[in-house]
Amino acid sequence: MSKSPLAPLIAPSILSADLARLGEDVERVLAAGADIVHFDVMDNHYVPNLTFGPAVAAALRKYGITAPLDVHLMVEPVDALAQEFAKAGATYITFHPEATRHVDRSLQAIRDAGCKPGLVFNPATPLDILNYVLDKVDMILLMSVNPGFGGQSFLPSALSKLADARAIIDSSGRDIRLEIDGGVKIDNIAEIAAAGADTFVAGSAIFNSKDYAATIRAMREAIAGAK
Amino acid sequence: MSKSPLAPLIAPSILSADLARLGEDVERVLAAGADIVHFDVMDNHYVPNLTFGPAVAAALRKYGITAPLDVHLMVEPVDALAQEFAKAGATYITFHPEATRHVDRSLQAIRDAGCKPGLVFNPATPLDILNYVLDKVDMILLMSVNPGFGGQSFLPSALSKLADARAIIDSSGRDIRLEIDGGVKIDNIAEIAAAGADTFVAGSAIFNSKDYAATIRAMREAIAGAK
Amino acid sequence: MSKSPLAPLIAPSILSADLARLGEDVERVLAAGADIVHFDVMDNHYVPNLTFGPAVAAALRKYGITAPLDVHLMVEPVDALAQEFAKAGATYITFHPEATRHVDRSLQAIRDAGCKPGLVFNPATPLDILNYVLDKVDMILLMSVNPGFGGQSFLPSALSKLADARAIIDSSGRDIRLEIDGGVKIDNIAEIAAAGADTFVAGSAIFNSKDYAATIRAMREAIAGAK
Amino acid sequence: MSKSPLAPLIAPSILSADLARLGEDVERVLAAGADIVHFDVMDNHYVPNLTFGPAVAAALRKYGITAPLDVHLMVEPVDALAQEFAKAGATYITFHPEATRHVDRSLQAIRDAGCKPGLVFNPATPLDILNYVLDKVDMILLMSVNPGFGGQSFLPSALSKLADARAIIDSSGRDIRLEIDGGVKIDNIAEIAAAGADTFVAGSAIFNSKDYAATIRAMREAIAGAK
Amino acid sequence: MSKSPLAPLIAPSILSADLARLGEDVERVLAAGADIVHFDVMDNHYVPNLTFGPAVAAALRKYGITAPLDVHLMVEPVDALAQEFAKAGATYITFHPEATRHVDRSLQAIRDAGCKPGLVFNPATPLDILNYVLDKVDMILLMSVNPGFGGQSFLPSALSKLADARAIIDSSGRDIRLEIDGGVKIDNIAEIAAAGADTFVAGSAIFNSKDYAATIRAMREAIAGAK
Amino acid sequence: MSKSPLAPLIAPSILSADLARLGEDVERVLAAGADIVHFDVMDNHYVPNLTFGPAVAAALRKYGITAPLDVHLMVEPVDALAQEFAKAGATYITFHPEATRHVDRSLQAIRDAGCKPGLVFNPATPLDILNYVLDKVDMILLMSVNPGFGGQSFLPSALSKLADARAIIDSSGRDIRLEIDGGVKIDNIAEIAAAGADTFVAGSAIFNSKDYAATIRAMREAIAGAK
Repeated sequence: MSKSPLAPLIAPSILSADLARLGEDVERVLAAGADIVHFDVMDNHYVPNLTFGPAVAAALRKYGITAPLDVHLMVEPVDALAQEFAKAGATYITFHPEATRHVDRSLQAIRDAGCKPGLVFNPATPLDILNYVLDKVDMILLMSVNPGFGGQSFLPSALSKLADARAIIDSSGRDIRLEIDGGVKIDNIAEIAAAGADTFVAGSAIFNSKDYAATIRAMREAIAGAK
Repeated sequence: MSKSPLAPLIAPSILSADLARLGEDVERVLAAGADIVHFDVMDNHYVPNLTFGPAVAAALRKYGITAPLDVHLMVEPVDALAQEFAKAGATYITFHPEATRHVDRSLQAIRDAGCKPGLVFNPATPLDILNYVLDKVDMILLMSVNPGFGGQSFLPSALSKLADARAIIDSSGRDIRLEIDGGVKIDNIAEIAAAGADTFVAGSAIFNSKDYAATIRAMREAIAGAK
Repeated sequence: MSKSPLAPLIAPSILSADLARLGEDVERVLAAGADIVHFDVMDNHYVPNLTFGPAVAAALRKYGITAPLDVHLMVEPVDALAQEFAKAGATYITFHPEATRHVDRSLQAIRDAGCKPGLVFNPATPLDILNYVLDKVDMILLMSVNPGFGGQSFLPSALSKLADARAIIDSSGRDIRLEIDGGVKIDNIAEIAAAGADTFVAGSAIFNSKDYAATIRAMREAIAGAK
Repeated sequence: MSKSPLAPLIAPSILSADLARLGEDVERVLAAGADIVHFDVMDNHYVPNLTFGPAVAAALRKYGITAPLDVHLMVEPVDALAQEFAKAGATYITFHPEATRHVDRSLQAIRDAGCKPGLVFNPATPLDILNYVLDKVDMILLMSVNPGFGGQSFLPSALSKLADARAIIDSSGRDIRLEIDGGVKIDNIAEIAAAGADTFVAGSAIFNSKDYAATIRAMREAIAGAK
Repeated sequence: MSKSPLAPLIAPSILSADLARLGEDVERVLAAGADIVHFDVMDNHYVPNLTFGPAVAAALRKYGITAPLDVHLMVEPVDALAQEFAKAGATYITFHPEATRHVDRSLQAIRDAGCKPGLVFNPATPLDILNYVLDKVDMILLMSVNPGFGGQSFLPSALSKLADARAIIDSSGRDIRLEIDGGVKIDNIAEIAAAGADTFVAGSAIFNSKDYAATIRAMREAIAGAK
Repeated sequence: MSKSPLAPLIAPSILSADLARLGEDVERVLAAGADIVHFDVMDNHYVPNLTFGPAVAAALRKYGITAPLDVHLMVEPVDALAQEFAKAGATYITFHPEATRHVDRSLQAIRDAGCKPGLVFNPATPLDILNYVLDKVDMILLMSVNPGFGGQSFLPSALSKLADARAIIDSSGRDIRLEIDGGVKIDNIAEIAAAGADTFVAGSAIFNSKDYAATIRAMREAIAGAK
């Protein structure tokens, strides 16, 4: 296991923000030290829930949010919606390889639209789809819970999977971000960083805390101390 | 053609509101005289767009919005998401009959969850599915544009369809609301009311106007003058 | 409203029989006076449940049951499974028109396989699909509950729908059976017969009664007394 | 029953032409007196067969065929492929209303692409979807066999359906073509015309005949003599 | 290749039993020495056949069968039906990983319902989905025929796949059962056991034999002699 | 990397031929030295385009084309259409493993119909589905562009994938053809052959060239010179 050479990014998931005051809440969490804004897009087909689409991303851009928007598509099919998010101002757009027949094409189309494409892996999904598309991927997102279902804890099997993904990235020689999503907290973020992650999605751990800044600071310190 | 005996309701669609300041914008439009809050829920399957789900409705309730929430489901399947909206505080829940195999059951399940169920009809969809479920329907929503596609004007064929639906409702002897959605503006709302509608969805006509109250007032006056 | 000119048939649904002793239980209910054996075939797609398929029908034939088998397909698609039931010894095969793109063709294929085809209507489904296929239909089955969901009572709207279907059949001049399924009991079978039904599916009302023969006799008497 | 006021059109279906010499065979059939070229587009989903797509239409245009191309889409979904056929040079584009959620929108999109839209009805499909879109339809195509299945004869129920469609068209006051497809032959074309059809698809009846011109001439004479 | 350290289990598939006398036939086969009862659940979607659902399992439990029920779900989606089988008294519940988007979650849900979850692999399906869920799996079932199609023999490629699966299980250090299904007979069961299987599904080999006990005894002896 | 021991085959794709004069154009390209005729079958579901089906293959056979027909199915589901192509005279039939639930069965069914089955891999698809079916495969087709989308160049990642597939074939000891499709031209065919391909699909590179024979000759020389 080895740490990522890239600077760590804290990515609060707006699924846990106050959706009636979204601009303000996102502004606050960025002021508190968050790096990028994580969007959990669910379509009630790929996962059993429906959250929000491109219009919400566009509203944040219009509100004045300039931080990178990190869009995680839990939808199928992928391509049309990915294009809408690109128009709405997305920075990263990641999708699940099972959700499209033409993974290479979907990655290319996101890059052609000016965004950074990535692949997301459910807890049980093997990593071998990466074999022939590593040159087209800017982010690998590993789910450490099952997306779309509530009340879950970090799955321990994600640690060895992070190590596998880290090895794949290191051998590629490319600056691919390794993101983790699901049950990330101050308590476990050090071992997650030690396993190779460099981009950390956190929802309730940040938005349900009283002091966003203190929570993010504690996360950064734990990451820095990881080995 | 005859007017509805029910008091008219103005239903601004939050799809046109500022989604980064949703609570505040909804509060403003209600203060300006709107009656109910219209939710356009799209899942990127029944229609080619994805908007927002139950968490946004729940956020409005938590923000303090107490007006009726009028949820229009452009989704398939219907049942699980309808239940989530009921839990999130919906008042009306309407769905498209093509989107569920068991229309009678879906209507019952919404009522059992404490909400007022309704059916929505696309511009070309005939009304005959109403024949055996009129006793289970609290709202009939006619689309006067094709849902999920942008930049459309009010379809003239909706006027005769409103008259047909009005006749069906009148002969039922029940207080069923007749709602219209798509291209409703100050200019055409009088003839729409004259055709039998009593609940008027308006998106950009209200939210893109400078003075919500003036717009809503003008709509009410036009409706009152309709014959 | 008028009664059917055809002799009434009592059709116990084996969904309520003892599935571990199916041959014996079916033999008993036939000995107790039942006319035909009703099969509720569910595929967990058209309805949210899975029951049994052609092998169970074939087992009953092999056991020695010679009464007509009345197979109600709550499945989609229809055609391949209908052929398997024809091979397994089905007499009637009915399906839901929404479950096949080619209703006329599916009806023909059942007849070509030597069975009597029919159409089933969910509680909300209009009857107009009958317009151009009445000459190919030997049975019309109206659902008086929503198929595939438990714990429901007879829907009152089914009575007026029976009257509508009766009028359609009478005007066709053909001997088409009008079957009713859902919540049929001794208490309501008279008014159901009066509305025009001539084939009566009953599950728990028969199989959960202590004396099958007494129950069936009471049903027949109620039907005979209907007007 | 009344005849159409429009001049009759003979529409040979290229499904029965020699697909290895398509340009030449179409040229011959047009020289023999055919009016328009009928394209049976099957996608192995809406019907159980796959035939040909837009590239074949484009090849005919490039070959020099200038007669109207009458494209019958037996596909689902409809919209993207309809646009491809418009680009390939289609004149009429008809589709099945069950194959799209947004019938009004699909009709508009075909017209916006410069083509004449129409709706196709399977043998059992009722005509009521026409109620609110008659102003957007340039052709109504009735299937007199089940599309996609081989070896069928003209269904007699199509005659009364033609009469129903003719009455709808006549009352609309618009020049809507009424087309018939399936089992049309010299022997039955007179009664088909008498029932109200004005556009006649014929496949093997023309392409399997020794003398295309004689066959088409015999069809025209029968139509002219119909009453 | 190595044998399993677990005691071998003979699992007769009730698909080959007498479905009209199911309780009795299952009782007989258990009395003849079978260990567990194998349920082949087909939904006419994941495989081209429909067999039986939870009500049949519940009937066996009510009849008095107390042996473990080993439910093989050839259905998609998986989750709701798995829960119904758990309520009906299932012991093992195995499913195909292609049939659910959320394999880890489906495994957890089965365990949470008090059953032993497992994964099934079609003949061509690779084993790599096991990588990150081995701690959640109590059974691995390899298909040695293609499920849902009749008249097939044991596929020789299953032997090397058994050896691969055996190696995975052995390296996990967990007591995971390795089950084989398809074409298992007295003649080949020794080499199957030698390849690593410890749970043997047999349908016609047992139920079509004259003496269940003699057949099962012969199977056990062959397994014991395998090396 | 190693070259294939099999004689190279040039396989012009008729998607680029003149579809209005297909027989003639195919005859010309074969006379110019092509070995086999490549059929790109698209169904507008597995890929976003619809091309042509079995009737076109049958027309070529009837025209007198006797060269092997190499049918690449970009369709889902696979089985029924594969059988139709077998009847129409196909030689090779290849399909995408994601497009069928029962890969082993689909391969067997093609062989049972007298054809040579193969698997096709999209650019991102891993090769591990080959593990347990190598004995049933006569051709492996690697896509070097994303099928069904226009205007793409040869993907460089296909070279290492060819080498991986070559190693798998070599270790199998069987005469399995290794085909490449997408962006193959005179300029790059040498390195493609060097990577292990022995069957070369070329569409526009041949059909858009002025002199088919010169182009094919140049391709053969480049292949022969590859190392």
